[in-house]
Amino acid sequence: MAGYIYADNAATTKTSEAAKAALLAAMEDSWGNPSSLYTPGQQAKEVLEAARASIAAAIGAQPREIIFTSGGSEADNQALRSAAAMGAKKGKKHLISTAFEHHAVLHTLKALEKEGFEVTLLDVHENGLVSAEDVAAALREDTALVSVMAVNNEIGTAMPIGAIGALCREKGVVFHTDAVQAVGHMPLDVAAQHIDMLSASAHKFGGPRGAGFLYVRRGVGVQPLIAGGAQERSLRAGTENLPAIAGMAAALTEACANMEAHTARLTAVRERLIAGLSAIPHSRLNGDRVRRNPGTVNFCFEGIEGESLLLWLDAKGIAASSGSACTSGSLDPSHVLLALGLPHEVAHGSLRLSPGAEITDGEVEHIIAAVTETVSYLRAISPVWDALENGERPHLI
Amino acid sequence: MAGYIYADNAATTKTSEAAKAALLAAMEDSWGNPSSLYTPGQQAKEVLEAARASIAAAIGAQPREIIFTSGGSEADNQALRSAAAMGAKKGKKHLISTAFEHHAVLHTLKALEKEGFEVTLLDVHENGLVSAEDVAAALREDTALVSVMAVNNEIGTAMPIGAIGALCREKGVVFHTDAVQAVGHMPLDVAAQHIDMLSASAHKFGGPRGAGFLYVRRGVGVQPLIAGGAQERSLRAGTENLPAIAGMAAALTEACANMEAHTARLTAVRERLIAGLSAIPHSRLNGDRVRRNPGTVNFCFEGIEGESLLLWLDAKGIAASSGSACTSGSLDPSHVLLALGLPHEVAHGSLRLSPGAEITDGEVEHIIAAVTETVSYLRAISPVWDALENGERPHLI
Repeated sequence: MAGYIYADNAATTKTSEAAKAALLAAMEDSWGNPSSLYTPGQQAKEVLEAARASIAAAIGAQPREIIFTSGGSEADNQALRSAAAMGAKKGKKHLISTAFEHHAVLHTLKALEKEGFEVTLLDVHENGLVSAEDVAAALREDTALVSVMAVNNEIGTAMPIGAIGALCREKGVVFHTDAVQAVGHMPLDVAAQHIDMLSASAHKFGGPRGAGFLYVRRGVGVQPLIAGGAQERSLRAGTENLPAIAGMAAALTEACANMEAHTARLTAVRERLIAGLSAIPHSRLNGDRVRRNPGTVNFCFEGIEGESLLLWLDAKGIAASSGSACTSGSLDPSHVLLALGLPHEVAHGSLRLSPGAEITDGEVEHIIAAVTETVSYLRAISPVWDALENGERPHLI
Repeated sequence: MAGYIYADNAATTKTSEAAKAALLAAMEDSWGNPSSLYTPGQQAKEVLEAARASIAAAIGAQPREIIFTSGGSEADNQALRSAAAMGAKKGKKHLISTAFEHHAVLHTLKALEKEGFEVTLLDVHENGLVSAEDVAAALREDTALVSVMAVNNEIGTAMPIGAIGALCREKGVVFHTDAVQAVGHMPLDVAAQHIDMLSASAHKFGGPRGAGFLYVRRGVGVQPLIAGGAQERSLRAGTENLPAIAGMAAALTEACANMEAHTARLTAVRERLIAGLSAIPHSRLNGDRVRRNPGTVNFCFEGIEGESLLLWLDAKGIAASSGSACTSGSLDPSHVLLALGLPHEVAHGSLRLSPGAEITDGEVEHIIAAVTETVSYLRAISPVWDALENGERPHLI
């Protein structure tokens, strides 16, 4: 795919060379089962614990506060189910989250609702943010958990998780954040931000698939989602995926080392993309312009079907998405954009671009030109757009 | 570790070269998110579906009957929780399993018991087997599930799962088998053996860590354990671990191609190990001599602590285990050996050997000599053994 521009890092990142090397080294040299007593097992255990220490340090945690999982979805499921079960034991069956969380959170909350929990989903402001005040207003005596994502996966807005964490700590409520789009991309400090539980996924920051972790602050209880063997202090059964875990640790170390430079580069790229795409008539940037992950922009173009736009961009050598890859088979408009208050017709036509820091200025211009051309072409062949242009019904953007 | 003899393949296998190559190829060439619409995503989706087809064919299943998981423990948890939940909807809250299942099954059953299910754990015969008649005697009108492992992970005995499957099918009860120690090691055919659900783990047959699968027969319902995205037809959320899945498919193809030759070789190795270790006084082969996985033998040596034996063998360049790696941190005697009716004192001193087919005759003789020497040495320095030898209390074996 020479010349192909990959601008969908929020869906998955290519595994970095450092991560690949660490994965292969673990597979070749540390193939023993870390639970085994003999030398190759104990050697593998050392690699496992070194990875744990390095990952913990990257978010300001202690090694024993890290539970390795198969990825972000599993970590989210475990965090929510665990906090709910432990809350229920104290008679607390109220859970607070937001309307635009990832489905790993929303679907788990839906299941918990069926099991007798009460769920409050906070409305999202038009700028794609929720505030600590919104959380404060929803807190009740029987609230067991607040779960607010660090960065929204579709539009890239960054929530004030430090303020939400401080509030929850003050009120004695467990605070979980799905930080899948934030870890490795922006500074996080679980102590300073008063985070009790945090979910992460390796393949969103240059690590391999099949590894993620759940941070659980010492003193906050947690239960296994996958029961069985004594791995991860009996909190996650199954032989540890050491190659992927070692790859994740290497990727996170690399991502943290490059964070300042990548943020500077991606912020510049983002500003150019926003300026370029805002010049398209009847376009709209979704989410706050500044309080966002540097790497992600999300636009709506009135009168455009997201899917057609993506297929045309693919033909022009650009990989982009209309929202979460996890739901891209779906014909429904994005629940995230609906949560922002966008009408169905507009929410259908979204474009998410999440380039990597390696993107060149020329590639950025190619993306802007390709999107501009394609939107114009799709509108030209659309009978609905003609009607809109003739003033038969009002433009929505 | 030149010269080191790895005889613990039941704990984990080294990733085969074919599996490693397939994993790396997927990581390099099929890095797109399989849920994405653009070309690299769709190309990854093709690799994913080819892996699914090849894995399904290896056990006589249809591709749509395979759900990819992170491993065997996850597959077991999902199978049991799902069958229990679906049984409960029909008022069926009785579950049947055996006393010597893997902890991924036993701990999940324990949790289900707390949630109101009734669990019958079948006794295991002294030969390490359960029979279809045992299952028949335990079946009730309200039985929702029978879960019997294909091959016991500690002693290697192979259950008559075809007969148990036929019985369950006749009675209309869902039959699950934890086949983690069987897949890739012995012929399996889910249709001929009337299996409704089957769990497998890649790293037990030369595949990478972090991949496994749950087979669910079409028509038998199943629910997600990890909720969220629409992957795996909404039955297992999370971006697919394509590199590990491709590696698993390659490993299973290879294992099936080599199965006849490996079975012949490992049966010969096993017979020699049994003959050699049986010559040690007060030793005992655990489990039926013939109805077993060719690769695994398990012995008890009276008066010996399993852990000391393992550490001495490690020092002599041999990796073996006392039972499941998943519990090797534990000081309790094996629940498997206790289930066979062995006294605590004897169950403490077990040795599992599970060599790979590449083991040489010289290495087999080295193992026999090393175990014989070590058992003799440990008994010589044991005051308890002296008392036994002097007839102060009866030998147990």
